[in-house]
Amino acid sequence: MSDDSGLSAKRVAVLVEEDFEDRELPQLLDLLRGTGMQITVVGPLAETEYRGKRAEATVKSDIAAGKVKAKDFDLIVVPGGYAPDRIRMRHAMVDLVRDAYDAGRPVATIDRGAQLLITVNGLRGRTVTCWPSIAIDVKNAGGRYVDRPVVEDGHVITARKWDDVPALTDVIVKVLSRSPAA
Amino acid sequence: MSDDSGLSAKRVAVLVEEDFEDRELPQLLDLLRGTGMQITVVGPLAETEYRGKRAEATVKSDIAAGKVKAKDFDLIVVPGGYAPDRIRMRHAMVDLVRDAYDAGRPVATIDRGAQLLITVNGLRGRTVTCWPSIAIDVKNAGGRYVDRPVVEDGHVITARKWDDVPALTDVIVKVLSRSPAA
Repeated sequence: MSDDSGLSAKRVAVLVEEDFEDRELPQLLDLLRGTGMQITVVGPLAETEYRGKRAEATVKSDIAAGKVKAKDFDLIVVPGGYAPDRIRMRHAMVDLVRDAYDAGRPVATIDRGAQLLITVNGLRGRTVTCWPSIAIDVKNAGGRYVDRPVVEDGHVITARKWDDVPALTDVIVKVLSRSPAA
Repeated sequence: MSDDSGLSAKRVAVLVEEDFEDRELPQLLDLLRGTGMQITVVGPLAETEYRGKRAEATVKSDIAAGKVKAKDFDLIVVPGGYAPDRIRMRHAMVDLVRDAYDAGRPVATIDRGAQLLITVNGLRGRTVTCWPSIAIDVKNAGGRYVDRPVVEDGHVITARKWDDVPALTDVIVKVLSRSPAA
């Protein structure tokens, strides 16, 4: 990856909690790290192993959500599986997503990660995709649900499921390549 | 339990899917069976073991959802944990809940089971409780969320979490004791 892209200066926070989708988060972390960006895994606690919902993968947090601020990152990623159901109950993690969203910083979700966009009231009139089980919740929150791999609407990037991790990574890279470093 | 209650004639369907809350569904089935009512466990498939989200309990289905109708039962129970997220994606199970709801038959949910009430559009103006992670989804669906052990509103009975299983059982018994056999 050429330095011309400025990607090496970009800081991405990837949230983690128990019961993430095993087929999504490790793959996404591998692809994001491969771009040369600075990737920080943010969990409820620092330096803690979180397990996927299928118990097939673990992901270790770098830092606790309470120790970071939205302005520390150029983009925040909310993972899928059942992790978002837990992240919704973590005040520091919700505040991080809300502050990033409200400041117009890019927020990317995959799968049920869109539940966090519901929680921060970020869907009104916005076109998004997600895992289909929560499509009705997205619509009730004012979102326009579409069944597509990845959707970009303003500063919100949403992806559907594990098959869409490479496409999501490409969109994240595109978005950060055109933005100035924070 | 005295036969005077008529409970032995009452037929209750309890839905099951993978990832139910281990601390709720087995306990609820034990208590319901202890009342002398006719309890049928309805899953996506018949005679199949489903595992709880903590892998601490399994529950075996009696019959497939596609083989039953709402009129076969006096009351339907939707379990909690992450099972409702899966049940929402099962057309025959959603139809069963919708048909029961639309016919005014009692529907009881616990925990995230209220997601099925969202799916069948059964929350408009109704007071309900649920696991707090989905409270915002319940509100966006037009429900009035309250943090109480068990809430009865019309033919909808909702409970919050595992601690509330005995209280939920009591309300189910009360509701069915006062209704004629279907």
